[in-house]
Order: sequence, then structure tokens, then C-alpha cells
Amino acid sequence: MAEAKDRVLITGATGYLGRRLVKASLALGHPTFLLFRPDTASDLARCQMLMELKMEGAQLLQGSLDDRDSLISALKQVDVVVSTIAGDQILQQLKLVEAIKEAGTIKRYLPSEFGMDVDRMHHAMPPGDKVFSEKRIVRRAIEEASIPHTYISANCFAGIFLAGLAQLAIFMPPRDHVNVYGGGDKRCIWVAEEDVAMYAMLSVDDPRTLNKVVYLRPPDNILSQMEVIEIWERVIGRKLSKTFISEDEWLSQMDKMPPFEQSAMAHFCHIFYRGELDFEVEGPHGVDGSELYPHYKYVTAQEYLKRFV
Amino acid sequence: MAEAKDRVLITGATGYLGRRLVKASLALGHPTFLLFRPDTASDLARCQMLMELKMEGAQLLQGSLDDRDSLISALKQVDVVVSTIAGDQILQQLKLVEAIKEAGTIKRYLPSEFGMDVDRMHHAMPPGDKVFSEKRIVRRAIEEASIPHTYISANCFAGIFLAGLAQLAIFMPPRDHVNVYGGGDKRCIWVAEEDVAMYAMLSVDDPRTLNKVVYLRPPDNILSQMEVIEIWERVIGRKLSKTFISEDEWLSQMDKMPPFEQSAMAHFCHIFYRGELDFEVEGPHGVDGSELYPHYKYVTAQEYLKRFV
Repeated sequence: MAEAKDRVLITGATGYLGRRLVKASLALGHPTFLLFRPDTASDLARCQMLMELKMEGAQLLQGSLDDRDSLISALKQVDVVVSTIAGDQILQQLKLVEAIKEAGTIKRYLPSEFGMDVDRMHHAMPPGDKVFSEKRIVRRAIEEASIPHTYISANCFAGIFLAGLAQLAIFMPPRDHVNVYGGGDKRCIWVAEEDVAMYAMLSVDDPRTLNKVVYLRPPDNILSQMEVIEIWERVIGRKLSKTFISEDEWLSQMDKMPPFEQSAMAHFCHIFYRGELDFEVEGPHGVDGSELYPHYKYVTAQEYLKRFV
Repeated sequence: MAEAKDRVLITGATGYLGRRLVKASLALGHPTFLLFRPDTASDLARCQMLMELKMEGAQLLQGSLDDRDSLISALKQVDVVVSTIAGDQILQQLKLVEAIKEAGTIKRYLPSEFGMDVDRMHHAMPPGDKVFSEKRIVRRAIEEASIPHTYISANCFAGIFLAGLAQLAIFMPPRDHVNVYGGGDKRCIWVAEEDVAMYAMLSVDDPRTLNKVVYLRPPDNILSQMEVIEIWERVIGRKLSKTFISEDEWLSQMDKMPPFEQSAMAHFCHIFYRGELDFEVEGPHGVDGSELYPHYKYVTAQEYLKRFV
């Protein structure tokens, strides 16, 4: 008899990554549970997303991070918890960590990470450092409570970075002109959101990822911005005009931007000017997701960009 | 050889009904085109929805109602146009009507209707009357330009009305308590959004719907609010407590609400207190969609509510 698959609870299931995690969890055969708050009933888009996921096989559990009893009751029905809470609510997860500790039965917790490895980013520039330091607070709480965990480090979401050739707040590839950061030569890693979700779900019951940071590094997608632009130029058969922006220019524009864009621009600086995604994965705590799951067919940067033709 | 299916252009394709129309159009085998504005590139959710629809088979055409040349160029590539522009932008369609007239090749235009038959609602109460009168202006412009057309009258969207048992701004069925309008005995018609989309797309190349109002009236879904509540009570095996609200009470609460809710409350009054969806379809301009397509298996109210268990 096949071993029963771990039951998975996903919080933030109607969100950007959450709904993709639900689909990946269901595709892998996990009994998949979604936590939804009673006040969701007044949010049409969320209700319809929840119902769509339910019709695909997910089960709904009413509960909220602010209602400890409902949370404990939900936790008792599952083996694994995956959180995708939004970047401005990271510390809300401390309530979940407390509840997981109290329940005492959770075999693996994946907190809301899915970005840069925050323990490598102690030096990050403000205001982009806030989300990193909050994620570190959650990590330390998880470790102090001895909760079995996996941290997924996924850079960069293709829909947000690759789709727009890394233009700030542009999510379709431009056909005429593109801004290039520095020489556009720093290597970064571009991962389709559906692949982030699938790698994350592949890791939840894998002993090799227990208490590890899993870096998602699909080999064909470790590319500089210029390499990505060249792929797109080949795909559409024409060259784009380019403006090369220096780091000083980039940083001098930050002050004029609203807070959310300021954070994004700070992250862009670490990624595209300072090349801080270009490092070797080292043990004992780091593992390379692409090496763990070599047979998983991820979306290459070229395949992703071809979708836009 | 099979006759080529009409090519369909859908405007507002990333919207609530728009994306369902795209799926219905593709399911019926129509070459399906979506109009998207250049500024969509800065809207992450819309970009991803467009790409999802593109990956399902739709083709993207860049253009905008404000750019006549792009609009004419798009119109020259299709046979049928379906608009689902939002309720607060109805008159924007006059630009589309002008362009369709100029192009001169469109075989059928379905303007953004999908609600009450506005030519039956000359007496509608403010502020809910505004959208009706604007839809009438668009109808008259279409007729004056002799554009072949079909008006789809669909009441009431299941996700908005049935899902919450017709509670205002509640989109999941309550399990304890429900407000009932009057005696809850006025019959209305509850139609799943995917069925609205499919009936609409079935009508676009049907000579029987040319220059007609198509009323969507799935026979099993012509039910009063109380009948709907009873279905839900049977489904969950328990009775809900009920507050019966008189028409005067309902109308007296309108003033306190924001404008959008005021319009919704006005529409609720026509539907649930005055029973204005309960009429016989009469020729020569009215046709019953369920009679035209009797073999199409629509979602019954009971099936719809069972999804929430």
C-alpha cells in the first residue's frame, strides 16, 4: 500500500504564491487544507479563488491567526504547514509559530520566505531591509521552538522580474527600449512562480531538506540581465535600445519613490548592481533545489519569454 | 469541410465576466482575440491573467478604446465583438460603436449588458438607474448605426447573489442567520457566471439571436430567495434564523451607504421586493436562452450551493 501523503495546510492560499502552492500540493497528491477567515465572505475575489481551489480538491478550514483555538484545531488536522503571508505582515507568523509549538504535532513548517536568503542579507540597505529582518525574527523563533522547518530561497520570481526584463513595475517584456542596471552583467536566478511552488512542495516531506535552506537555482536560468535581454531579442527578432543606468543614478532616484517602490529598488540594487544572488551554495545548512529534484522539468527563461510572443 | 468559426474580439477580457467569456469562446472553438492597452504592462494581476488566457489559446491585440487606429485595426481581424466594460465606464463603448460602424465588417456586437433588461427599467430608482440609462444610450447608438447586435440579460450572477443567499456584499452562504427581503417570495433567476458566458458565446453566431434580447432563464434556477435558502438548509442539514426586512426598512438604510452600495440596494429592491425579474419573455425582440440551447447543461442553484459544503 502506498504511504499516505502528508496533509498540508496552506495559509495565505488566495495570494500570489499561495494559490500556486495549493495547485502544486494537490498535483503531488497531498490532502490540502486552506485556512480562511470568516471575514473573507465579504471579499468577492477571495471567495471565488477559495471556491476555485476547493473545486480543484482543496479543503477549507475556517480559522485565523488571531483565533488561537481555531488555529490549533486546524493544525491538529495536518502534518505540514506552509505560510505565504504577505511581506508587510511577516511578524503575524509569530502567532502561528506559537500555535505550532503548542500543537506539537507538525512535522514541517515552511514560513513565508520565497525570496533572498535573509541570513545572507544582514547588511541590506533600508528600507528593503525591513522584510529581511522580520523574516529573520521568524526564523529564530522557529529554531528556538525546535520546529522542524525548511526555508525556501527563490530568486527572482519570473512574473515580477523576468516578464518585464527586470524593469521596475513592468510585467510584460518591452519591445523597443530597456533600462539596464550597470553593465547588466551580474548573474541572478529567474524562477517561474509555478516552479517555486512545485519545488517548495517537493521539499515538504523530504528528509534532505529538514532544517535547511533550499536555494532554487534552475541551471538554465542563472543568467545576467543582459543575457535575458538577448534571449528576448532573439525571440522577437529585433534589438532593443538600451539605457545603461549606474548604481549612483539608480540610488539617487529612490528618495522620490513611494515606500513600496523604495524597498523594491533597494532589492534591485543588491541583485542587479551588487550581484548578491551569485554565490555558491554551501553546506551544512544550504541545499540546491535543482540538484535535489533534477528530474523536475522547470520552465526555462527562454520558454517563459516565448509565452509573450 | 467544417465551416470556420467566427473570430471573436473580447474587450475587458481580464475582468470578472470577461475572463469567463474568453474561456467559453475558446471552448466553443472560436479564434479568440483580447484587446489590451499598453499601460496594462504595469498591472501585475492583469498581465498574469492575460498570459493565462493567452496560454489557453487566446491571441492578444494591443489597442485601446482611446486609440481609434488600433481599434479599427483590431476590428478588421474579427467577426464578432463582445464588450464587458465595467459598469462605471459603460459610455466608453460609444467609441467602440463608432469604430464598429467605421470598420463596417462586424457581424455581431454584444455590448456590456449581462444584467437586467434595461429597456424594461425606465422607472428604475436612483442611483441604480444610472447604469441602466447609460446602457440604453449604448443600445440606441448601436441601433442607429444599424450594427447587428445581441443584448444578453442575465440575472442574477450566482457568485454575487446566490453564493451569499442574496445578502448584500456577502459571497459565501451564511450558516446561522440570513436576512430575508419582504416575504422572500419574489421569483428571480440565478445563473452561474460560467453559464452566462457560455450562453452569451452560444448566441454570437446564432441567427435566432440577431438583434434580440436573450434572457437567460435556466428553468431550475427560477426561484425565490426563500426557495434558495431552503435549498441551502437542506444541503447543510440545519435551519437558519431569519430576519424579515420590509421594503421601507431596506430603503431607509440606503442613505447611510456609500454610492456603490446604494446602487446595489436599489437593484435589490427591484429584484427582491418588487419581483421585476418575474415576467414572461415576449417576442418579437425577446428570446429565452434556455429554450434556444436546451441541451446545454447549466449549473443548478442546488449544485452551485453544494460547492460550499
